[in-house]
Amino acid sequence: MTHPFDQVTDEEIRLSSKLIKDAAKGPEKPHFIQIDRLDPPKKDMIKYLAAERAGLTTPSISRVTYVYYYLGLDFYKALINVTYGHIITNQKLPKGVIGPLLPDDVETIETLCHVHPKVVAEIEKLKLPSHIRVVCDPWMNGTDSVEDRMLIQCYMYLANAHHPESNHYSLPLKFSPVFDCLTKEFVRMDYLPAGIDETTTDTQPWTEFPFVEYHPELNNESLRPLKPLIVEQPEGPSFTVEGNKIKWQSWEFRVAPNVREGFAIYDVYFKGRSILYRLSLSEMTVPYGDPRAPYHRKQAFDLGDCGFGGNGNSLALGCDCLGVIKYMDCRRITAEGDPVFIPNTVCMHEQDAGLLYKHVNYRTNVPVVTRKREFVVQTIATVANYEYVLNIIFDQVGEIRIHVLATGILSTMPIEKDTTVPWGTNVGPMVMAAYHQHMLSFRIDPALDGHENTVVYDDVVRMPENTGLNKYNVGFVTERTYVEKSGYVDQSPFTNRSVKVINENVINPISKKPVGYKIALPARQMLLAGEDSYNNRRAQFATQQLWVTKYQDNELYAAGEFTNQSQTDTGLGVWANRGDNVRNTDNVVWATLGFTHIPRTEDFPVMPAEAHDIAIVPFGFFDKNPALDVPQSNNAFNKSKYFKDSNDAAKAASSSCCKSSL
Amino acid sequence: MTHPFDQVTDEEIRLSSKLIKDAAKGPEKPHFIQIDRLDPPKKDMIKYLAAERAGLTTPSISRVTYVYYYLGLDFYKALINVTYGHIITNQKLPKGVIGPLLPDDVETIETLCHVHPKVVAEIEKLKLPSHIRVVCDPWMNGTDSVEDRMLIQCYMYLANAHHPESNHYSLPLKFSPVFDCLTKEFVRMDYLPAGIDETTTDTQPWTEFPFVEYHPELNNESLRPLKPLIVEQPEGPSFTVEGNKIKWQSWEFRVAPNVREGFAIYDVYFKGRSILYRLSLSEMTVPYGDPRAPYHRKQAFDLGDCGFGGNGNSLALGCDCLGVIKYMDCRRITAEGDPVFIPNTVCMHEQDAGLLYKHVNYRTNVPVVTRKREFVVQTIATVANYEYVLNIIFDQVGEIRIHVLATGILSTMPIEKDTTVPWGTNVGPMVMAAYHQHMLSFRIDPALDGHENTVVYDDVVRMPENTGLNKYNVGFVTERTYVEKSGYVDQSPFTNRSVKVINENVINPISKKPVGYKIALPARQMLLAGEDSYNNRRAQFATQQLWVTKYQDNELYAAGEFTNQSQTDTGLGVWANRGDNVRNTDNVVWATLGFTHIPRTEDFPVMPAEAHDIAIVPFGFFDKNPALDVPQSNNAFNKSKYFKDSNDAAKAASSSCCKSSL
Repeated sequence: MTHPFDQVTDEEIRLSSKLIKDAAKGPEKPHFIQIDRLDPPKKDMIKYLAAERAGLTTPSISRVTYVYYYLGLDFYKALINVTYGHIITNQKLPKGVIGPLLPDDVETIETLCHVHPKVVAEIEKLKLPSHIRVVCDPWMNGTDSVEDRMLIQCYMYLANAHHPESNHYSLPLKFSPVFDCLTKEFVRMDYLPAGIDETTTDTQPWTEFPFVEYHPELNNESLRPLKPLIVEQPEGPSFTVEGNKIKWQSWEFRVAPNVREGFAIYDVYFKGRSILYRLSLSEMTVPYGDPRAPYHRKQAFDLGDCGFGGNGNSLALGCDCLGVIKYMDCRRITAEGDPVFIPNTVCMHEQDAGLLYKHVNYRTNVPVVTRKREFVVQTIATVANYEYVLNIIFDQVGEIRIHVLATGILSTMPIEKDTTVPWGTNVGPMVMAAYHQHMLSFRIDPALDGHENTVVYDDVVRMPENTGLNKYNVGFVTERTYVEKSGYVDQSPFTNRSVKVINENVINPISKKPVGYKIALPARQMLLAGEDSYNNRRAQFATQQLWVTKYQDNELYAAGEFTNQSQTDTGLGVWANRGDNVRNTDNVVWATLGFTHIPRTEDFPVMPAEAHDIAIVPFGFFDKNPALDVPQSNNAFNKSKYFKDSNDAAKAASSSCCKSSL
Repeated sequence: MTHPFDQVTDEEIRLSSKLIKDAAKGPEKPHFIQIDRLDPPKKDMIKYLAAERAGLTTPSISRVTYVYYYLGLDFYKALINVTYGHIITNQKLPKGVIGPLLPDDVETIETLCHVHPKVVAEIEKLKLPSHIRVVCDPWMNGTDSVEDRMLIQCYMYLANAHHPESNHYSLPLKFSPVFDCLTKEFVRMDYLPAGIDETTTDTQPWTEFPFVEYHPELNNESLRPLKPLIVEQPEGPSFTVEGNKIKWQSWEFRVAPNVREGFAIYDVYFKGRSILYRLSLSEMTVPYGDPRAPYHRKQAFDLGDCGFGGNGNSLALGCDCLGVIKYMDCRRITAEGDPVFIPNTVCMHEQDAGLLYKHVNYRTNVPVVTRKREFVVQTIATVANYEYVLNIIFDQVGEIRIHVLATGILSTMPIEKDTTVPWGTNVGPMVMAAYHQHMLSFRIDPALDGHENTVVYDDVVRMPENTGLNKYNVGFVTERTYVEKSGYVDQSPFTNRSVKVINENVINPISKKPVGYKIALPARQMLLAGEDSYNNRRAQFATQQLWVTKYQDNELYAAGEFTNQSQTDTGLGVWANRGDNVRNTDNVVWATLGFTHIPRTEDFPVMPAEAHDIAIVPFGFFDKNPALDVPQSNNAFNKSKYFKDSNDAAKAASSSCCKSSL
C-alpha cells in the first residue's frame, strides 16, 4: 500500500500527463517539463502519522502531482489528484514566468548547436585540424533584463577528437551562440572577452594549444600503487528497509527521491521522540563574480533551473559508496510526459566515523570506549561541469549532519596568454576559472517533541568586569534571544552565537531549560553580489545564513517555485517578510550553507572534493548522553591487525583496553 | 643509527638523570620532573637533511636533552649533551618559576589527600554510608596572585564504593583541600560555592543522591544491537615505516613522540617538494567561565602543566583505530629520573574518507571517480576528566588536516537542588558543569619549497558598483595583504579571509602567482577572559587566531616554557611583539583552534566526541590536481555489496560506473 510520503510512481506520471493531454484543446500538443509528487497537506499528515504510529487505521489522503508544461509558448502548471484521477487546477502562468529546463530540450539544443549554419560558419573560422572537435555545454541564460523567451547560452569548447572523454573545459572558445529553447531559433552570437575588460575579438584561426586532461587514458600519469581497503559487514548491515522507511540505531525516518531536490527525508524520530517533519536541500545558486558581459548573467539555480534528482548520477557499488549498500531510484520525464527511470540515484549505507566517546579512569587504567557508526543517505548530481555530493548523515547520538561535497570540473573561460584577471584564477595555459559562490539552502522543518517550536539564539558574553562576583574578570554567561517574527538571524561568530530550535512546552528535568536542538553552521561570507543586482533580487536566501518562517504548505523552495530567468525571489524573499509570528508555533528554518570559491590550480582539471557541513545536534533534548547503550568497542568485534612489525603486539599485552569483560 | 629527529631513548634519559645526580652537591637528592629531547638547532638540521636527501654523509649533530628537577624547593633546568655525556648548562630558575606536575607527585598527593587528618575530619562530617567512597581529582592550582609554592587543588567527589568505575563526577563535594605538591604540607581547606554567588556552607551530613553512571556494568542500559563493520586490508597497508620515517602516497615525514606535545611531525615532503619543517600541538589552555572563588583560578595548561605525551593513552587495537595499525611509544620519568615506558601512545593507520573526486560526462555517462584514502597519526591524552584526541591526517591531494576531538568527562561542580547559574549547565541532579573554553595552539613551521616563506591573507571584496565594467553589480575580486612584521592576523570571515603561507621566490607557471598553502580555520570566539585577567596575561596566544613569528630555536610552546602557576605568557606574548621582519624569511605560524564549550546534558556522563579542524591545504602549490595518479575506484578493488534486496543489482546492470576498462 502506498504511503503518502512514497515517491511518485510511473503510473502516476503517466496518468498525470494523459489527463493533461486529454484536456488540451487546440492544435498544440503539451510539451512537458516536469512532473512529480506534491507533499500532502501537513494538517492531514499529522493525523495520518499519529494514527500510523498508534497502529490505528490511517485516514486516506489523496496523492497529488504537479505538472509543468508548455502549450506552444505558454507555460502552464497543473495539479492532478492521481488517487482519483482528475485535474484539480490547470492554469496558464503569468507572462515572464519561465519553466525549468527539460533535459531532452537541452540535449536537442546541444545537437542543434553543432549543426546550425551560424554556428558552423563561426567554427569554420577556427580552421580546426582534424584531431580537434567542438563541444557545447548548454547553460541557463540567467537574468539581466526582462526576457520572456527561455534562452540557452551555449558555451563552446574544443576537445581531442580521438577520445570521447577529452577535457573540453581546458580549451574554451570565445564565441557563444544563444538559442530560444522552445522555438529552437538562433537568437544571437555572443562573443566572450578574454582579457582584463569587456573587449571581444572576432573569431580567428585556432593556434595549437595543450589540453589539460583528467581521464586516465589521456592524463599521462603513472599510477601510485595503492592496496585495497575493504569495508566488510560479514553479518550484514544494521539497518532495515521497509518500503521507504529506514530504521537504524534508534532512528526511524522515510526517504523519498524526487526530481527537484534529489531526495527529501520525512518523519524523523530518534529514540521514540519526534525530531523533524521534513529535511531537504531546497535550492542552490552559483553566482559568478566575473563582471564582464556575458558572465554577469552567469548564475545557476541548480534545483529550480534543472532539478537535482533529474541530474542524479546512477551510483555504483564500490565507487560512490563502500560496504553494504541499499539504493533508491528517481524518475524524470520526457517531453511527451513519459517517465524516465534513473536507477540508483540515492544510496544508503553505514560507515565507521572514529571515536564516539572515550574515557580512561587514570587510577585503574580502565577505559570505556566506543566507536561511532554513521548512516549515510547520499545522492550525487552532475550539473554540466560540476558534481555536487549531498550526504545526510545520522549518528548514534541523535545528530544529523548535512555534508556537502563540491567536485567535478570548474566552469572555465578563455583567457589570453600571459594575462591574469582579479576575478579569476588561471588554471591552465589559456584557461581561467572565475571566482564564484556556492550558496545552498537547506530547509529544516523541525518537530521537536511536537510541532510547536521556537527558534532562539544564544550568545556567549563576558560578565561585567571588576565586580564583586567577577573580581578576576574570568566570568562569562549565555544570553538567549527569542525569534518572535519571521525573518533572519545575523551571524555572530565572535559571540559564539548558537542558533537552536526549542520546544518551550517541554522542559528538560536536568538542565531545567526547554528541550532543543542546535543548528550549527560555520560563519561564512554571504552573497557578494550587490543589493542592487539581479543576483541578489533573485536569491534573497543567499544574503543571510539563517531564516525562520511560519509553516505553510507548498513553501518548499528557498528562491521560489520558478527560478529559471526569474526577475525576483518568490520564495524566502516573500515568506520571510510577512511578519508572521514564529514563536511557539509550526515554523520552518532555512539554513544557508555558503562558500565563496576562489579556484586554485589544484582544482583543475578535476576538483578534489571540498566538504562543507551543517550539524543538527541535540542540545538539552536528552537528559544525558543518549548513546550509553551503544556496545563497547573491542577487537573481537572490529578485527584490526598490527602492522607486520611484531613488537607492537608484545607491547600491547600490557595494555588494558579490550581486556575487560565488557 | 639514531636520527637527530628520533625520540629520546631510555639510555639518554638515564644518562641525563645520572649526570644531574652526580653533579648535585649538598644533602638533597634531585627530584626529577621532566626529561626529554630538545630539537637540534635548525641551521644544523637544514644541512643534515640536505645531505640525507642527497644520499651524502650527514654531519654529526649532538643529541641534547633538557632536564627539569627540584633540589629541595629550588627549581632547576639543565641541558645535557647525551651524545658525549656532559652537562651543557645547569641553572636554578628564578623564584616564581614553577615546574610542571610530575604524575608520581600528583599520585602521592591524591593518596595523601585521602588520609590527611584535616581531610578525614571533613569527610567524617558527611557521615557517609558504607556503600559510598570518596574520590580525589588533584588539579593544578592556577594563578590569582603571586605564589611561589607549587599547589595542588584537590577536587573531591563521591562514588559507589562497590565498583571502581563508578562516575564520581556526578557527585562533587563542597570542600576542596589544597596541598603543597613538593613539601606535601596541607595548606588550606577551600569551600566551594553551590549557588548563585560565592556563599559557601559548612560540610553537612550527606543526603542520598543518585549517581549518573556511564560504565556499562552500572548504567542500566540495554544495548542496541549492532553488527560488525570491519576494515580489512588483505594485501596489507600502503604505508612503510623505517625507524620513525613514514612513506605513504607520495608523502614522507618523520613522527617522534615526546612527553610534552604527544608527538611532533618533522621534515614533511609531498611529491618530492618540501612542505613543513615541523608540526605539533604547542599548548592547550582550558579556562573556566565560573567567576566564583575558587573557580576563578580554574585554567589548565594541559601541555605545559602536565604533558600530553606523558598523559597518553596506551592505544589498543580495534578500540582506538581500525584496520592495520602501527604504533609508537612514549616515555615519561619517575621522580628518581628513571624512564617509564608508555606503550602505543601514537597509532598510525589508513582510512577511507569518501570521494576524492568525481566527474561524469553527461553525454556519454562515463565517470571518472576515485575515493580518498587518508593516513592518520593519532594520540589520545587523558587529563584527569577529559580526553583529547589529536589526529594529524594526510590525504592524497597534498592536504594535512589537524583534527581534534574532545571527549571524556566534563569537569563538574556541586550545585544546590533546583538552582541554576548563568555560567554553567546542570548536567545531573545536583551537578553543574561550568562553561569553559578549549584553546589549542598549533605550531606550524612551514618550509614551502624552502625556508624563505611569507604569510599573506586574501580577502574577497565586492568591486565598486555601478561602474562601466561592473554595471550589474556582480563582480568580486581578491585583495592580498602581506604580513611584514611579527604579530597576529585578525579574523574576517565575512570577507572570506584566507591566510596563506607562500614562497615569493617560486612562481606557479599556471596561476602566475607565488606557490602557497592555505591555513584554513573556522571563525571562532577567542579568549573570553578580560584583558585585565590572569587568564589573558598567561595565554596571549588564545586572544587571536593566527600569529606569525620569526623562527628562533627553542621557541616551541605558545604560552612559554613554564606554564604551571605562571604569572604571564613567556611565549607568543613575547615573541610576537619583537617587531621582527617575517616576510620572505624563516617564519613560524601559530594557529589557535578555539571552541567555547557550553556544556549540554548530552555531554554527561561521558561526552560524545566533538570535532574541530584546521586544514593545511595546497593553494597554487601544484600546477594542477596532484592526485590524478590515484587509481580509479572500482568494485573489484573495493568489494562492496548490495543490500539483500536483489532488485538493486538488476538495476545497476545498466549503470556504467565500474564497467569501463579503467
